[in-house]
Amino acid sequence: MKERMLVDYGTVFPFLTDEDWHRVEPLARRALEDLESARGPGSDFLGWLKLPARVQPEEIRRIQEVSAEVRQEAEVFVVIGIGGSYLGARAVIEALGPSFPIVCSRNGRGRRVPWIVFAGHNLSAKYLEDLLEVIQSKSLYVNVISKSGTTTEPGLAFRLLRRHLVDKYGREGAARRILSTTDAARGALRRLSDQEGYRTFVIPDDVGGRYSVLTPVGLLPVAVAGISIEELLEGARSMMDVCSLRDMFQNPAALYAAGRNLLASKGYLTEILVTYEPRLQALAEWWKQLYGESEGKEGKGIFPASAIFTTDLHSLGQWIQQGPRTILETLVHIREEEGSLRVPEDPDAQDGLEYLAGKAWTEIQEKACAGTRIAHHQGGVPIFSIEVPRLNAYFLGQLLYFFEKACGVSGYLLGVNPFDQPGVEAYKQNVFALLGKPGSEERARQLEETMRNLPRNRFV
Amino acid sequence: MKERMLVDYGTVFPFLTDEDWHRVEPLARRALEDLESARGPGSDFLGWLKLPARVQPEEIRRIQEVSAEVRQEAEVFVVIGIGGSYLGARAVIEALGPSFPIVCSRNGRGRRVPWIVFAGHNLSAKYLEDLLEVIQSKSLYVNVISKSGTTTEPGLAFRLLRRHLVDKYGREGAARRILSTTDAARGALRRLSDQEGYRTFVIPDDVGGRYSVLTPVGLLPVAVAGISIEELLEGARSMMDVCSLRDMFQNPAALYAAGRNLLASKGYLTEILVTYEPRLQALAEWWKQLYGESEGKEGKGIFPASAIFTTDLHSLGQWIQQGPRTILETLVHIREEEGSLRVPEDPDAQDGLEYLAGKAWTEIQEKACAGTRIAHHQGGVPIFSIEVPRLNAYFLGQLLYFFEKACGVSGYLLGVNPFDQPGVEAYKQNVFALLGKPGSEERARQLEETMRNLPRNRFV
Repeated sequence: MKERMLVDYGTVFPFLTDEDWHRVEPLARRALEDLESARGPGSDFLGWLKLPARVQPEEIRRIQEVSAEVRQEAEVFVVIGIGGSYLGARAVIEALGPSFPIVCSRNGRGRRVPWIVFAGHNLSAKYLEDLLEVIQSKSLYVNVISKSGTTTEPGLAFRLLRRHLVDKYGREGAARRILSTTDAARGALRRLSDQEGYRTFVIPDDVGGRYSVLTPVGLLPVAVAGISIEELLEGARSMMDVCSLRDMFQNPAALYAAGRNLLASKGYLTEILVTYEPRLQALAEWWKQLYGESEGKEGKGIFPASAIFTTDLHSLGQWIQQGPRTILETLVHIREEEGSLRVPEDPDAQDGLEYLAGKAWTEIQEKACAGTRIAHHQGGVPIFSIEVPRLNAYFLGQLLYFFEKACGVSGYLLGVNPFDQPGVEAYKQNVFALLGKPGSEERARQLEETMRNLPRNRFV
Repeated sequence: MKERMLVDYGTVFPFLTDEDWHRVEPLARRALEDLESARGPGSDFLGWLKLPARVQPEEIRRIQEVSAEVRQEAEVFVVIGIGGSYLGARAVIEALGPSFPIVCSRNGRGRRVPWIVFAGHNLSAKYLEDLLEVIQSKSLYVNVISKSGTTTEPGLAFRLLRRHLVDKYGREGAARRILSTTDAARGALRRLSDQEGYRTFVIPDDVGGRYSVLTPVGLLPVAVAGISIEELLEGARSMMDVCSLRDMFQNPAALYAAGRNLLASKGYLTEILVTYEPRLQALAEWWKQLYGESEGKEGKGIFPASAIFTTDLHSLGQWIQQGPRTILETLVHIREEEGSLRVPEDPDAQDGLEYLAGKAWTEIQEKACAGTRIAHHQGGVPIFSIEVPRLNAYFLGQLLYFFEKACGVSGYLLGVNPFDQPGVEAYKQNVFALLGKPGSEERARQLEETMRNLPRNRFV
């Protein structure tokens, strides 16, 4: 049997009673059954459940072929997308890529992975101007990712980069360098892609943005980064069975979902995803979208936050240790093998650290994790420890699938539809109105009235 | 009169009554008076209050001279520090630097700012290994920042980089390239610096780490980045008077402190620092330490979180709009001048965005901010809008001083000592014990017992 990640809930136990667990058990079972039999709300968006087993070998091969071409030809690969259209790919690429990605040169030595940079996920002019400057003289490929092709941020960034490509390579050259990931049949980006002859990859209809990392949305950029998408998918696949077990105490996804809902009912209303690896920052961002957008509705939901330790022990650590007891931690603990980087001897330093001379950095990190877990536990923080044997594509695949499955169960337990995002419209409609989008005149009028009616004397 | 940042509390008004404000007014006045007359807890650490007016011209000149040398000689400048020893410098440098910093080459064209990279703020082996690889063939300067010189993370990173420098440049060459920022007289780093002949910069005794950005801790790296530290200090100085006004309704720092404490008392227990500029992410991290570490104690404190919009509107936006009404927003709104980057015409795109063709990106960002503010306000989120005229060193100086002053007042209002961090010791002592630090054997024994006694059957 292959290894898999484990969830250690030892430090959650003391915060919950046996009664709590037994009360939640039938509810968790029901949530799981509703999910798997597509009886719950949002059941049109359950394609991600079977995705690891469903992706076709031809699709994988095609992604690998195109990504090999990109690695060969591109110095820079710009991925255009927002929310679920970039967070998954970024999570995997940053977790497994170099800490300091550099723009490579085709003529430079060795490195055959282009610099992968994300765009279309903000409206910052400075960001785009700086990007245009950096890519000016570089060989560029672009992957534009959008189901509809009409979302403002990626849409505008794509206009800019498309013009850049056409100016640089001509219309045909640009078309060869634009890869679009979009709907199979409908939408603006599909129309444009067909018309211009872009190579396209399909976002399945039954997979929402934040659950799409194992579709071409995530797989293509990940493959360009030189990461094995087969291993990623295999890892995800290896979690499907155990995350379907009806016995909550045998099913890590159900247990995590149940535990965090129980804790929330006792006032633990902020969940901090903690890791000790700076390169897992983007994974935390992916997780924050997954849980925040799935659960934060109808006045419900645990607030998702994140921290990188030990960095943030010197920032949020004080609050976590002694602030209000309203937080729970979910620790993604990578059990690294002993590395070769060791603390140099240096008696001159007189820094009180000579007792660490010769120790591997990985061991020190490991002890920091263990010591902190106990300190926070004793300070009154329930902690789920997710033990990941190593940081590679296979175990990342496990982790991604685990979190997705647990999120679905958790949302049903909470009594919400974890697959919609009705609250994201409010700001969008306001922005359209303020920007003068045709058809939004009435909303614009209402907005102006609202702004006029805000209290006066309000500046200091 | 010069411009300054303003705090717009119009969208906070509807969440509080006149009675609330009048109840808190005498308390805020008292907190302010206690702070300024050094009568409150932690009054040994109030040096930051007068810092902008206290920094000596000779010190500024010396920082500028040394930083000019570093800019001339270094391709890479590594800043070693953790918590307050790096967050302030990073906040300013990332806010005003390029979006995509690249390793420059002395032989390359133009750019005379070295690549500034932070280390010693984590225990990741991979991070340090990748860093060593990138700097291998580069001209390197190091700034090690530590009051004591014995903190584990920066201490270990410094051992590694010091060895790297000595191997590369010899002991004397290394000494010329190491700049240390430390205590005036005491501590391991002071001793080592004097012994090796490093150039040193002094951390004043009466300024704690998280309030130290306007000491050499922040000023030296900021100057190396080519940012005017005189403007930064001048901006901070320009806030000193208005942030001392006894009338809370005229004093932005007192008003913000009072408002957020009132909101907390009504159940708004998470504060999200929001900006629309990705390059302000590090400022948010600085702010999180400042408020989290100052207030999170004795079971009190608002949980500090952050978000970059519009990016995170596609992630946390749903939660903010419709989750539990327990959050307040503090918006740092940069009023950019109209930029030159404009949306290209592109009728072919059929993306529904042609109505934006010709508009400046800055205008679209501006409208996104206004529309979102109203949407969140109507969704039940109180919002402090901090209106910053432009993003430059001067206004950043204002912002930093404003947040520091408000934090001091806020901590006193909350009834805690905002200048200590007693909870940071717990994890450190555990880690020392697990790592076998001499003298911690008893704690190690206790820890092992604790770990043995955690509930069994705890893995799924």
